[in-house]
Parts: sequence; structure tokens; C-alpha cells
Amino acid sequence: MTAYDYDLLVIGGGSGGVRAARVAAALGKRVAIAEEYRFGGTCVIRGCVPKKLFVYASQYSEFFEDAAGYGWNVEPASFEWSRLLANKNREIARLEGIYRRNVENSGATIFNSRAELVDRHTVRLVSEGRNVSADQILIATGGYPMPHPALPGHEHCITSNEVFDLKTLPESIMIGGGGYIAVEFANIFHGLGVKTTLVYRGTQILNHFDDDLRAGLHEAMTNKGIEIILHAVAEEVVRRKDGQLDVQLSNGEKRTVDQFMLAIGRIPNTQGLGLEAAGIKTSTTGAIEVDRFSRTNIDNIWAIGDVTNRVQLTPVAIHEAMCFIETAFKDNPTAPDHELIATAVFSQPEIGTVGLPEHEAAQKFEEIEIYRAAFRPMRNTLSGRDEKMLMKLIVDGASRKVVGAHIMGPDAGEMAQLLGIPLKSGVTKDDFDRTMAVHPTAAEELVTMYTPSYRVRSGKRID
Amino acid sequence: MTAYDYDLLVIGGGSGGVRAARVAAALGKRVAIAEEYRFGGTCVIRGCVPKKLFVYASQYSEFFEDAAGYGWNVEPASFEWSRLLANKNREIARLEGIYRRNVENSGATIFNSRAELVDRHTVRLVSEGRNVSADQILIATGGYPMPHPALPGHEHCITSNEVFDLKTLPESIMIGGGGYIAVEFANIFHGLGVKTTLVYRGTQILNHFDDDLRAGLHEAMTNKGIEIILHAVAEEVVRRKDGQLDVQLSNGEKRTVDQFMLAIGRIPNTQGLGLEAAGIKTSTTGAIEVDRFSRTNIDNIWAIGDVTNRVQLTPVAIHEAMCFIETAFKDNPTAPDHELIATAVFSQPEIGTVGLPEHEAAQKFEEIEIYRAAFRPMRNTLSGRDEKMLMKLIVDGASRKVVGAHIMGPDAGEMAQLLGIPLKSGVTKDDFDRTMAVHPTAAEELVTMYTPSYRVRSGKRID
Repeated sequence: MTAYDYDLLVIGGGSGGVRAARVAAALGKRVAIAEEYRFGGTCVIRGCVPKKLFVYASQYSEFFEDAAGYGWNVEPASFEWSRLLANKNREIARLEGIYRRNVENSGATIFNSRAELVDRHTVRLVSEGRNVSADQILIATGGYPMPHPALPGHEHCITSNEVFDLKTLPESIMIGGGGYIAVEFANIFHGLGVKTTLVYRGTQILNHFDDDLRAGLHEAMTNKGIEIILHAVAEEVVRRKDGQLDVQLSNGEKRTVDQFMLAIGRIPNTQGLGLEAAGIKTSTTGAIEVDRFSRTNIDNIWAIGDVTNRVQLTPVAIHEAMCFIETAFKDNPTAPDHELIATAVFSQPEIGTVGLPEHEAAQKFEEIEIYRAAFRPMRNTLSGRDEKMLMKLIVDGASRKVVGAHIMGPDAGEMAQLLGIPLKSGVTKDDFDRTMAVHPTAAEELVTMYTPSYRVRSGKRID
Repeated sequence: MTAYDYDLLVIGGGSGGVRAARVAAALGKRVAIAEEYRFGGTCVIRGCVPKKLFVYASQYSEFFEDAAGYGWNVEPASFEWSRLLANKNREIARLEGIYRRNVENSGATIFNSRAELVDRHTVRLVSEGRNVSADQILIATGGYPMPHPALPGHEHCITSNEVFDLKTLPESIMIGGGGYIAVEFANIFHGLGVKTTLVYRGTQILNHFDDDLRAGLHEAMTNKGIEIILHAVAEEVVRRKDGQLDVQLSNGEKRTVDQFMLAIGRIPNTQGLGLEAAGIKTSTTGAIEVDRFSRTNIDNIWAIGDVTNRVQLTPVAIHEAMCFIETAFKDNPTAPDHELIATAVFSQPEIGTVGLPEHEAAQKFEEIEIYRAAFRPMRNTLSGRDEKMLMKLIVDGASRKVVGAHIMGPDAGEMAQLLGIPLKSGVTKDDFDRTMAVHPTAAEELVTMYTPSYRVRSGKRID
């Protein structure tokens, strides 16, 4: 082992890479980690964290409206984008500092440099102009927003990379895409007072989610005043003399907007990484191929997180990091567990989900029971806000196990997190029924739906 | 059975009584229900529901403050108590109407009258001046706020009965008591701009709750500007000429306030009910004594809900009603299950809890593990609000079962509801650990506390 400069070299200082570096260093390994940009990765720098801060900011406009029904007189509030950005930047810098200090305190060496593979044990530190060697190498370089070079005028568009640092808040925006990033930002901009249009080529937003959530969120967003155009894509974006953008859509419609944001997916960050030099196989999408222990085809090189394009979520990358440590350094081969991952979409209303959507459960099980409730959350009574909360449980009729839980409404993400525990434990609907309600909460609906709304047998709905 | 006017007569139109009447009527029984005041009971008319509406109203003052850090400029808002009351009253009337219609639609007969027992099968309808008879009688008359006749000047005080209809919002209030009603209203009034003092004879607010929650909420409330005086009670309340109240405390201090609210407990509503005439036993507190099937010592008379002083919660009363139906009308004797009831305190910050507090778990189990985290919820970062969220799991070291979960912070009540499911199912800490985090949420802390903060063995803390 002493033949190499390091026992472990990590490429990429995001959530997964930092966790692996810290834990390996704590085990006494000689560890280095290279990061070309900022510590914290997509999640901290231009993803989950600043996104959620923007969501909080954008929620206030509805709070102000709702306050009237509760007796408050609120003058129309004004919004300063520059203050939100400055405060967001300060918070992100603080978190980045924590990430960096945690690495330093663990004893790992930090290279503030891009790192590229030279061979299976050697990495070139581009900024320092030198090579270092390592016994084991972990690639955790994440991903980035898919560009759209085929779109004429794509150079005028922004992505989720730029959106966190726009100099000014646009008066109008069009967002291309129908995934969680697209719908989250559509709601953020709308809440901040921006005229917002979402354009998506599919039949409904949030592909792969439960159909009730998809239709429910579509309706709620439309009711707020967000325009959603389906079955269409942008075909051309033209910069006008006044700076605005003319967007030509495939359905013949045309919109003039201040900004166009592309949110059509994310791709693994592997370009120029030297994968060929090291002989590492990638898939057609550029994702690094790994076995179930996160090992590449080169047996001393591993990859975790978004760069492997398994499940692109921060906690998954961290979990994969911990499993990698067990496998590579603790003689305890451990495969990451990607089953039953709860997730949230921080749309407005929020979405939280764990387990199978109805259409998948209907295929997997002979008979399923659907428990479904739509109701106005209590806060919306005095406010007069006409927005429904949606809850849905999917139960395997044979085993009585709850195999899917889907929520749209306030705190749906928090609820999905905690529903993840019983679903992961394989509890039954009877366990839900035995649980006493907490009143008045929204979540009590989940333990008081005693009668199925309908059943699906052999893929066919029966009432 | 036809010897009586009804198969079942229910006294009291609250949550428990209404549920029992509806379900029995749906089974084809001849059912009557008597209510002297309004349908919906304490919960709907002057408890859970209007309380939570007031909580929502009172939260806006912090929302307005917090908005600045998120880029919003909000002029100081003014508050109109009369508008909140009018809107609250409209919503309560709407809910009351739903309760009443549900009873009517079930086919049960409604008596808008006080009902008093004459003998074990006969009830006097006071408003109608006549008697009706029933084979089975269910008493579900609830409870009411404990008065304090020994306190000189108690006639100047209000309770949770009057607080929902005060003509004007006081500028200052003192609340006597330390239970959940006292702390909820202290936070409501403070949030609405009222100078608020809580005075409690005990050593800490929220007796019987986990000590960390008690201390945490005390600190949070004090930091907001709520004055909490412990080890003291009011000894005299004197009405001044200007209408204000001088309150003399047992610790020698004195306060002058606009209102004094007594929140020192609730007692069963059994006075003048004719219990003696029917031969029904009560406890020293006036609660109706029942066996584990909710049956009184008179075998055709039953009692559920607050009047039995078991667990004074709406969902418990409803559960007891359903069990009563199984026992009395479906030949399926079913005892209510009072184990592991999750509850919420709608204080600010909110509290949610299920299972054993640390001090009880330490007595019950040889060794317990405590997992504990205190952190600033993400919304509080940009707002600059210096309020921590607290999470605590208590694990039985031998069985690995999670036997207690305690949360203080935003949405703690929703979280407690959903934690109720795995705790009721008896899942282990390993099941929590296997659950993937949802990021960024607050609840993810509950599945990522991998190492005990400390242990307690044979009642002694060991680190």
C-alpha cells in the first residue's frame, strides 16, 4: 500500500465524496479529495439547499394573502431578489465552510483542483500541474443540467446552474421540462410574482409519479395562475433587441419571455475525466457503470452518486459512500439498498411519496386496495384558499402490506420521510388502522382511511 | 327490545357520542341522541378546532418577521380580533352543521335538550318536559374547564370556554396553569401581540412530557418574550376601577392584566346528570367509572370520552365509540386500546410525542439508548430566527424497539402522527436506520441519528 501516495483518492467534493473521504480518514487511511469548484456539491451549492431556500421565499406571497382571513391587514409587500440572493449566498458559503472544515478535521488532504485520471492508480491535478497516485480511487463527480445544443438559441437559455445567481428577477419565465426541477422552479418563480409558463413534451408533468399526484399538482398549479403547456417543446429561442426572448413552440404557439430555463434532465459529469485512460466503462448516457458494490470494471476504482446515474438523490449518494467504505476498507462487502426510497418534490403544494405508484402496484400485485382522500387542509378554511390536500395509500391485498403512499399538500415531504419507516419495515394496513389519530392534523387522514376507495384486480379497477 | 322507545339513547353530541349514534343507526338500531348545546362537542365548538385556527392566526406575526430575510419588505401588519372571531364562528357553524346533518342522515333522532337519567332505562328531556326510554344508554357528556372557586376573584377569570368569544383582544393576559391548554394559549396570545404571562405552581411546564421537551419549550417561549413564572399560583384577583385585574401571586409578585385565564385542568361533566338516580358509580373526581369495555356498573349503561377521564382526546373518544358498538351491538366485545397514543401540543414551537418519555423508559427498561439532536430548522437560517428544533428517540437496548419519540419544532404534530405507526407496530431502531433520508427535510434527522447520544442503565446515565 505504501507504493502509492494515498490509500484513497476521491474525485469530487459533493455529499458522497466528502462522506467517503471523511470516514476513510477516520479509519486511519491516507486520504485525499480533489474538488475543482466548491465543496458541498450540487446539493449544497446549486441544488437542494438553495432551491429549498427559494421555495421558502416564494411561499410568503400566499402567506400574505392567507393572513387576511385570519384577521390580519397586510399592505402589499415588495420583494427584493438581490437580498434573497445575498442571504442565500451567505448561507451557502457557511455550509460550504462546514463541509470543507469537516474534511480538514478528518485528516484528509484537500486538492482545490480538477482531477483527471491518467491510469488506474494515477490522477492528474490540473491546477497544480502534477500527478498523485492512490491505491483506491473513488469517482463522485456528480452530474449537471443537460444542455440542449440542438435547440436554436439554446445559448440564450439558463439552467438550474445559472438560476441561483440571476442578476435580476425576470418578469416572465418559461421553463422547459416536466420533472421535479421544472415544477419546483415554476412554483418558485410564480410565488415571487413572475409570470410563469411551463412547457413539457409529455402527456403530464412528473412522469413516473402516481397519476393522482400528477393530475392534482397540475390542477393546483394551473389554479394558481401558472400556465402549463403539454405535448409541446420549444423549437427556437430568439433574442429580441429589447433583450426579451421569443420562444417558438412545436404546437405553433409563441411566447415572449424574459428568461427561458431548460430543466430537461441531468447527465453524469464524466467528460474529460480520463475514464478512457483508466479503461473505465460508461453507459451510452455517459454514466459510469458499476456493480452492486459501486465498483467499476477496474477493480480499484469505484463510483458513487449521480455520476453512476442510479438514483440521483443526496441521501442515496451518502448511503452509497458508507457502503463503499464497508466494502473497500472494512472487509464487509455491502451493496447499497435502493429499495423503497421516499422522496419529496418541493412544489407548491408539496409532494411526498414512497413506494409504488398505483399503476406499478397494479402490475406487480394480483389485487391492490386503494385508499384515497382529498380534503381542504385546515389552514385553508379561514384563508379561503381553494387548494386540496391529497392522500393515497396502496395496499397489496394478499399480504396486507402498504406498498405505496402518496401525498400532496403542506409538509408532504416530512410525511413521506416518516412513512418511509413503516413501509421499509413492511408493516400492514392493519398496523396503520391500529394507530390512534392525532387531532387536528392532516396526517391523521393516513390512519383513518378504514375502507378502500376502490380495488384493482388483475390490472382492472373494481369498485 | 320493543319495550323501550329506543335501542340506544346517547347523551352528548360530541365526537364520541355522534360517532356511536351514527354507527348504531347505520346498523338498523333505533337511536336517539340528546345534546343541550351545540353538536360537535368541545373539540369542534371550543377546543381543538377553534384553538388550531387561533394558532394559525397567531403564527403570522413570525411569518411577517421572517419574510425580511427572504427578501420581502412587509409593512407592520395590524390585526382585527373581531374578523378572526367572525370567520372562526362561521367555520365552527359549518362544522357543527356537518355533524348535525351526519346524525340526521344516519336516521338517528335528535333531541335538542339536556337529558338527565331518571332510572337505568329512562331519560328526562328537560327542554321537552318528557321522558324517553332506551334499552342501552351511552353517556358521552365530555368535560369542562375546572373552575377555581377557592380563588378570591375567580369570577373575574375566564377559561377556555370563554376565550373563544372574548369581545376584545386584551392587551395583556395572565394564564394560570402549565398544561397543554395553558401553553397553547400563551403562544396564541403572544403571537397576536398580547403581553403574556404564564403562572404555574409546578417546577416546569408540561408535566408528564419528556424533560427535554419541557425545558426546550420553556426556553423557546421565554426567548419569544412570554413571561413564565413557576412555583407560584394566583392568590387573589381584584377588579380595578379601570377594568383591569390586579393579580396577587403566591411568590409575593403582583401583575396587572386585562384578562386572567384559568387553565388548571378539565373535569368530567357529570353534575346533575342523574347518575345517582340510575345508580351509576363515579370516582372522587366525578368521572364515570367504566370497565375495559366502557360499561358502567349498571350493565345497560355505558360511558365513553372525557366523561370517563381515561385519555381526554377526540380520537380516543371516537375509538371508544367504535369499540362500544362492537361490544354492545355486534356481539364482538372489544376493549379500547389506550397504548402508544401519539399526541401534539400546538405550542409555538409545536410539540409532537409518542411513547415513553425518557424518565419513564429509564424505569421500565434495564438499559435504554437516547438519540438526541438539536438544530436550527432550515427556514430559520435566512430568517435569522434563533429557535432550535429538538428530536429525540428512546430505544430499549434489549429489544432494540423504539419506545419513545419526542419532537419540538415545525410540524411536530404531523410527525408524531406518522411516527405513531412504526412505534405501534413495534419496529426497531435498525428499521429507522435502514430508511433512506429525504433531503432537505427536518424529519430526516429521525432516520440519520446512528449513534446514541447517551445511554441510561439501571436508571443511571452512562455516556
